[in-house]
Amino acid sequence: MRDFSGDHQWLSINTATVRNSLGADWPLDKIIAACAARGIRAISPWRDQVAAVGLKRIARQLQDTGIVLSGYCRGGFYPAIDAAGRRAALDDTERAIDEAKLLNAPCLVLVVGALPGALSGKAQYTAISRARSEVRDGICASLEYARTVGMPLAIEPLHPMQAAERACVNTLEHALDLCDELDPPAESAGGAALGVAVDAYHVWWDPKLEQQIARAGARRLLAWHVCDWLTPTRDLLNDRGMMGDGVIELPKIRRWMEAAGYAGFSEVEIFSTLDWWQREGGSVLDTCIERHRSVC
Amino acid sequence: MRDFSGDHQWLSINTATVRNSLGADWPLDKIIAACAARGIRAISPWRDQVAAVGLKRIARQLQDTGIVLSGYCRGGFYPAIDAAGRRAALDDTERAIDEAKLLNAPCLVLVVGALPGALSGKAQYTAISRARSEVRDGICASLEYARTVGMPLAIEPLHPMQAAERACVNTLEHALDLCDELDPPAESAGGAALGVAVDAYHVWWDPKLEQQIARAGARRLLAWHVCDWLTPTRDLLNDRGMMGDGVIELPKIRRWMEAAGYAGFSEVEIFSTLDWWQREGGSVLDTCIERHRSVC
Repeated sequence: MRDFSGDHQWLSINTATVRNSLGADWPLDKIIAACAARGIRAISPWRDQVAAVGLKRIARQLQDTGIVLSGYCRGGFYPAIDAAGRRAALDDTERAIDEAKLLNAPCLVLVVGALPGALSGKAQYTAISRARSEVRDGICASLEYARTVGMPLAIEPLHPMQAAERACVNTLEHALDLCDELDPPAESAGGAALGVAVDAYHVWWDPKLEQQIARAGARRLLAWHVCDWLTPTRDLLNDRGMMGDGVIELPKIRRWMEAAGYAGFSEVEIFSTLDWWQREGGSVLDTCIERHRSVC
Repeated sequence: MRDFSGDHQWLSINTATVRNSLGADWPLDKIIAACAARGIRAISPWRDQVAAVGLKRIARQLQDTGIVLSGYCRGGFYPAIDAAGRRAALDDTERAIDEAKLLNAPCLVLVVGALPGALSGKAQYTAISRARSEVRDGICASLEYARTVGMPLAIEPLHPMQAAERACVNTLEHALDLCDELDPPAESAGGAALGVAVDAYHVWWDPKLEQQIARAGARRLLAWHVCDWLTPTRDLLNDRGMMGDGVIELPKIRRWMEAAGYAGFSEVEIFSTLDWWQREGGSVLDTCIERHRSVC
């Protein structure tokens, strides 16, 4: 396993981690500059953060600073109550693919969606099997376009506590079943067109995690996200902990990832209304660097 | 599938549902009387509620009212930092087995435990594989005693969001793997000594749920718990919804249970600091009866 203790060359910052610096918006160009100043080599930005500054301006800044992407957030949210809604999700994901391409992202992360309407408090239907079917069809359609431009798609299984609102793919096993169905190994001799983003926060509890990471192998393992699970966890979405402050065995899981062939970045992604988003972004980045070296 | 619309003969009340009536303690003898007055035929009480009134008094009241148990809560919490802690958990579970026997419970529910200390905010170790190994050994030891007195044990897989604090068995598949290992079908020709309690709240998200319920079969399906998953869910433990107020497809899952041979009670178990525990217990019971008939 790679030794992270001596430097932070394999650290990436998911820019949601510092987007709410001191409780207020920290623009992406400032975040990139702060990363560059600290020798952070990679980021994974969100589309709205890119749009707020301007896609071309961000692309230029990335070139100027030499910072690369470890992923791009995000496409997906496929299920909808009607065909127009499903079409809108596909169109939106195509735009995300185009942006990911322009920013030289190694993959577009898919948060696949779940029961339409649930995110705003009222599910328009409750048949999770229907949502899963629409997700399958949506990925299949996005994949067709993604293949033409050469942008790998990474399904991110989300924690089961997000199954109603954000993603009805909740285990690595389910995500890999979709990969094997929609992107059979025989059809992509080189890299996979469809793979997975493994976020420790979402999957650490899974008794089949080691087995499924091994099954995925290097071709499917497109991203590795870290943060920590706090006890207690006070909010289902925005109470993630800094690495080392919770109970996730990050080195153990990274060992499984690397044994399967993963050799990419370790991307820090922390949503934290109550703690890290109340701090100054630069100090949060410094803590990410320190923890990346000491506990990841 | 059984028709629940005409009566509530298959309704059971997990007494945690009304234990905090109007925000204050509602003693178990009062709860039993309120159930009896409504023709509710079964309950599933918690040990501390029984102890507060007195075990023998509750046993007598159950006999007098003709109310039976659909389960008894709970044994388990096996993992501990040292041998003394693990011994204490085994002893405590033996006492729970004795009480369950005295109350003629059909099974003792096991909340198996997880990372010791995590429930009070500081895990004493973070190796979930160690916790799982201690859970396996603990169930094995409890089972030996439970067999001698003839009390089936029901492993309740808890939602993965409880993996750190309350139970490191988080899928029905994992629970059934333990059942098959520790209580092989060949060894118990009659009923199983070890089975599962299927709580819709904990397992509704699982893409393998239908398959695993079928695998379990009638022998292993010892209990069926219902409530609902709210969107949003504001608390990881105590924000369960009344059946019909959330997104769980209860009739669909009950159909799977009954197709596998389950023919027991539908037990309502709602932990709800913010809503149902603020109401008067009798009206909550009335709502349980109404929803049992209309949406379960």
